[in-house]
Amino acid sequence: MTTGETQKGASSGDARPRYDIDGLKAKLAGIKTEDNANLVRQKSRDFYWYSPTLKRQLDHVVGDLIVSPVSEQEVVRVLAAAHELGIPVTPRGTGTGNYGQAMPLSGGVVLDLSGMNKVLTVQPGRFVAEAGAVIADIDKVARPQAQEIRMHPSTYATASVGGFIAGGSGGVGSITWGGLRDAGNVIRLKVVTMEAKPRVLELTGDDLAKVAHAYGTNGIITEVEMPLGPAYPWTDLFLGFDSFERAAAFANLLGEADGIAKKNVAVIAAPAPQTYFLRHQDYMAPGQHVVVAVVADFAVDAALNLAAKEGAELLLRSDKLADEERRKLPPGFELTWNHTTLRALRVDPAITYLQVLYPFPDQVKLSASIAERFGDELISHLEFVRFDGKVTCFGLPMVRFTTEERLEEIMKIHEDMGAPIFNPHRYTLEEGGMKQTDAVQLAFKKEADPQGLLNPGKMIAWEDPSYDYNAGGTFLFKGLAAEASKA
Amino acid sequence: MTTGETQKGASSGDARPRYDIDGLKAKLAGIKTEDNANLVRQKSRDFYWYSPTLKRQLDHVVGDLIVSPVSEQEVVRVLAAAHELGIPVTPRGTGTGNYGQAMPLSGGVVLDLSGMNKVLTVQPGRFVAEAGAVIADIDKVARPQAQEIRMHPSTYATASVGGFIAGGSGGVGSITWGGLRDAGNVIRLKVVTMEAKPRVLELTGDDLAKVAHAYGTNGIITEVEMPLGPAYPWTDLFLGFDSFERAAAFANLLGEADGIAKKNVAVIAAPAPQTYFLRHQDYMAPGQHVVVAVVADFAVDAALNLAAKEGAELLLRSDKLADEERRKLPPGFELTWNHTTLRALRVDPAITYLQVLYPFPDQVKLSASIAERFGDELISHLEFVRFDGKVTCFGLPMVRFTTEERLEEIMKIHEDMGAPIFNPHRYTLEEGGMKQTDAVQLAFKKEADPQGLLNPGKMIAWEDPSYDYNAGGTFLFKGLAAEASKA
Repeated sequence: MTTGETQKGASSGDARPRYDIDGLKAKLAGIKTEDNANLVRQKSRDFYWYSPTLKRQLDHVVGDLIVSPVSEQEVVRVLAAAHELGIPVTPRGTGTGNYGQAMPLSGGVVLDLSGMNKVLTVQPGRFVAEAGAVIADIDKVARPQAQEIRMHPSTYATASVGGFIAGGSGGVGSITWGGLRDAGNVIRLKVVTMEAKPRVLELTGDDLAKVAHAYGTNGIITEVEMPLGPAYPWTDLFLGFDSFERAAAFANLLGEADGIAKKNVAVIAAPAPQTYFLRHQDYMAPGQHVVVAVVADFAVDAALNLAAKEGAELLLRSDKLADEERRKLPPGFELTWNHTTLRALRVDPAITYLQVLYPFPDQVKLSASIAERFGDELISHLEFVRFDGKVTCFGLPMVRFTTEERLEEIMKIHEDMGAPIFNPHRYTLEEGGMKQTDAVQLAFKKEADPQGLLNPGKMIAWEDPSYDYNAGGTFLFKGLAAEASKA
Repeated sequence: MTTGETQKGASSGDARPRYDIDGLKAKLAGIKTEDNANLVRQKSRDFYWYSPTLKRQLDHVVGDLIVSPVSEQEVVRVLAAAHELGIPVTPRGTGTGNYGQAMPLSGGVVLDLSGMNKVLTVQPGRFVAEAGAVIADIDKVARPQAQEIRMHPSTYATASVGGFIAGGSGGVGSITWGGLRDAGNVIRLKVVTMEAKPRVLELTGDDLAKVAHAYGTNGIITEVEMPLGPAYPWTDLFLGFDSFERAAAFANLLGEADGIAKKNVAVIAAPAPQTYFLRHQDYMAPGQHVVVAVVADFAVDAALNLAAKEGAELLLRSDKLADEERRKLPPGFELTWNHTTLRALRVDPAITYLQVLYPFPDQVKLSASIAERFGDELISHLEFVRFDGKVTCFGLPMVRFTTEERLEEIMKIHEDMGAPIFNPHRYTLEEGGMKQTDAVQLAFKKEADPQGLLNPGKMIAWEDPSYDYNAGGTFLFKGLAAEASKA
């Protein structure tokens, strides 16, 4: 990759750097920066390539400079300097997002927060950590106190907690605690604004919604306070069912079993477990639809009793594996959420996926109807969660990709059948979410990033306030357009 | 009280002891017994007097001998001896039940298990205790490990864990963990049978339903294994609302707020808080309907933020009280469940109560409609719980008692309006519950108590298999009938 190829601008295909990167570096003396092209390219991407659409659109995206602050003060210095020079800043945790959240569409600075990784305090029921702390590392500090983080993505081992809040929505643990958006799941955030004199704000309560799931478009999260839950010995249960609908019905029952302490309940339809779970293949029979549940050791008997009544075959329970066997297998949650997709992609690169909500109370029937509607083109994958106080499920079905048009059609059929889509093939907040302006996030961006330098191109409401979400098209960020059209 | 007054028999008003109590005492050498009439009378009762009906029916009930074993071996000896002599045995924890669960309708032995009170083990997520262990004492052992019992009655400070399982159904904690009947809320029970050679059984899984909530009619629970939850610093929040329905709607929202760690959400309609919560009167304004919520300290901000949006006035938060003030007030949960009723009864002995289920999803509207239907005759009191995976509420409304006939009428109106009643004015399992035979409990009684000596009169299915629950009457146990007619 040449320097020319890394450039993108708001309005042209100009091949030379538009930004005064040298001037910026001069202002950042003492702060770690990196401009090695390979490293910059590596840190300019995430798991956007799960989506063939995003891969086409974003494959060329690259920043100009990686800046890696290790303190709030350094973040303030970086933002002040970039603000002065008009250089975009796109924050990044550990780059485990799936929608290009941390990709610098207009180049400029990639603000790598992975060095701000200290776990500051652990108290009963809560912790405080720097935004770049890896979730598994937070648990390393919390577990000796019999506590652990209440929810995490399947990228637990590598994801940063700040990135999870800025770019995620829930995951393992959501069957008990709901989603990140639910009151109580984030206690406090510290956020730095993008102004001549960056402010350091403490957000709590409703103010959390300003920056949670905003992809860093309106402030840089530097510190996180979140609740902790009890750290039990957890057991992975793999349960086989003859029918997908029976598997889904059992998963729903287990989800609604209030007395059974659990942290994940997933359903993966055949033939995905047999085909994609390479290290688990010996445990599965052909055609079995598999529930992967993570329950507290003291609740295993209750869960298995329920499973037996629903016609399940016990395929595997992690607590009965020989140590040697156990070491060969990933933890159960690393077969769920987008790790299911990842395992499918490793075996069959033509697979992609959707994000679906099957609304309460029809989730079991609806997911089964949709599975039947598509046959082999779609392999169902459900993740049960608490949503507004009820148990229902999201879907991350695997789709045998043919064309972007067909993918759109498949999503339209879902919505027509009553299952809203959270489109994972879009890099904007709005199109990946509720397809409407988030007035709270927009208002905060006007206040905290008046020049629009934070993660440009991700918030349609900022880039094009008159954008019509009902027109049926896809938003194309102008700052990306020139390059995208070349791709 | 004379000896004659303490007698009751299956078929007569015979004034002399029918049972060979002296013979029994001889067989129980080394085991603590008590036949002082006052002490026997005291240990033959519970809080049955909350119900004017039960007070009329059971006021004369008294056993012949209190036997207080301190080990499983002693329980086995007592049961073998009483079996040999045909003497009824009615088990008792600490006597905090409300339906005469532990009252010896046919006299005989009151088996006082309160001396079997050892907490045997506490591990991550579970404990094992003898049946007579007081729940608060279990927590004294568990709390240093940052754990506590997951659910308990409002009689936490005095109730035994075995009595809770044998005679209760849920309580504080049920908003998170559901009821005792839900899989996972009891792990294992040890039970002694009433046979010539009593057996000691270990029950798990579906077998738990044999003896849970069976009032000790089919086995004596001697040991309990249950899950533990995280012991957070909990905060009591008292929130005032102008309308009962808004209070109920907020309580429902808080119940459904998955991210807010909580252990109780109660709604007490005006004028109960102002009239009956004597030590809290200064905090309440006239006419306010009050939500008493118990939430984790780290979730208080989230809960208060939600409350403010729903129009609540914050009346009291325990974490902001001066130490001196806090010491004067009972814990919040001691204003909820049947402690609400108790506080009402202390002020106004003419108050009694009902037990109502407002089924999901209409609980808020239905409870408000019923409150409106009765006006001043009934003061609403809701306890929110998880029930089959959904949030809904039970009611323990306070009723201004006039006649038993009117009480029946009030219950009928509830059921006609769609709110099933669990009648607290009945001493039988069936009439207080689902008004039908529990086949599992009956089958186990045939096996574990073939002579029908355990807690006689409480299981209609045993006493009168042909009893017609739809006939509209009240079951009257023959062993009680002679005395009751005298009362």
